[in-house]
Amino acid sequence: MTLEEFYVRQLRLLDDGAVEEWADTFTAGAVFTQHAPAGRTFAGGAPAVRSGRVAIAAALRAAVAKRAGSRVTRRYWLGMLRADGAGRTRWLAFNIETPVGGRPVLHNSTGGEDLLVPAGDSWRVHRRTVVHDAAAPPTAG
Amino acid sequence: MTLEEFYVRQLRLLDDGAVEEWADTFTAGAVFTQHAPAGRTFAGGAPAVRSGRVAIAAALRAAVAKRAGSRVTRRYWLGMLRADGAGRTRWLAFNIETPVGGRPVLHNSTGGEDLLVPAGDSWRVHRRTVVHDAAAPPTAG
Amino acid sequence: MTLEEFYVRQLRLLDDGAVEEWADTFTAGAVFTQHAPAGRTFAGGAPAVRSGRVAIAAALRAAVAKRAGSRVTRRYWLGMLRADGAGRTRWLAFNIETPVGGRPVLHNSTGGEDLLVPAGDSWRVHRRTVVHDAAAPPTAG
Repeated sequence: MTLEEFYVRQLRLLDDGAVEEWADTFTAGAVFTQHAPAGRTFAGGAPAVRSGRVAIAAALRAAVAKRAGSRVTRRYWLGMLRADGAGRTRWLAFNIETPVGGRPVLHNSTGGEDLLVPAGDSWRVHRRTVVHDAAAPPTAG
Repeated sequence: MTLEEFYVRQLRLLDDGAVEEWADTFTAGAVFTQHAPAGRTFAGGAPAVRSGRVAIAAALRAAVAKRAGSRVTRRYWLGMLRADGAGRTRWLAFNIETPVGGRPVLHNSTGGEDLLVPAGDSWRVHRRTVVHDAAAPPTAG
Repeated sequence: MTLEEFYVRQLRLLDDGAVEEWADTFTAGAVFTQHAPAGRTFAGGAPAVRSGRVAIAAALRAAVAKRAGSRVTRRYWLGMLRADGAGRTRWLAFNIETPVGGRPVLHNSTGGEDLLVPAGDSWRVHRRTVVHDAAAPPTAG
């Protein structure tokens, strides 16, 4: 599986709200950190740090529950991917939200850095750091 | 030609309103279906199904005629592509519309599944199923 | 370095406002032209043409200075890339601007054509022609 394929699969699981399968794309000890852009802080004052696959899954499960019944379709796009050959990647991502009968709008714009480790013929994320351009508090895993 | 190259070529033909060349990227017996998201229906009540290259071309020709003189530039993006090695693909797409002197806006957000068949050193689409996130009636081929 | 990697690197330098490194992705004699769509003209009446890396760098430096302190994060996306094997490429690009605490919005939608020349294990742009869909005067390099 190429890196591109790994990310497409991971993000489509996020689109689908497939919490357990998505969480399984992280290592058991993964650390997922979400920051405001440099020089800013999230409303809560600190980066959101989730340590371990269990905490990462719980955050997404809460976000999925919150969106249940919202009748908004969300699609994640990831691109502008760079890799150093040793599992370190940089990428950009955004998602598009479309309400029933409405116009699609951009919901988040982010830049991320991952440390991936091999897992069979694929990878898992061991460390993910995401900068949220809006510097609004993160609401999803 | 890689799958990515096939899709870039096909979508740029759509940008350009090149109806005949675009239609030639489908097989003569291709079926093109556009759905609302699961649990919803298009305003017209049913999926839009176009059977055969002639019908597929006619739908785009009508859409191009309708947009003629609109002074809006439309750009299709396709990404998040997955392929199973047997001609089945999944992808996301959106298009950006920009009026003269105005801001670009997202016009459609969709997810698609294709069955491709080999055609020389490229492919043709034999079956395409597209989900329109907005669940508005499709207006273009 | 693949073409995709070249473009990701070049555009991330633009995101970062890294003027000198970005300018070094052009040849010394590069020509960078920005057009309105066919049949239209920029407000200024003529295409913006910058000849030579020095002029190209100066235009970006001015744009970066103008945005300094704007508290808006800008992210460039490039995709739908085609190459002919002889250094000629075609692509689409847009950028997303996100103000602090605000929603991300599309800022520009463009289509470009490059002539690239080999440079070590990478490339430099020798000729770039960009069509700005909005037909507004270009403000950045």
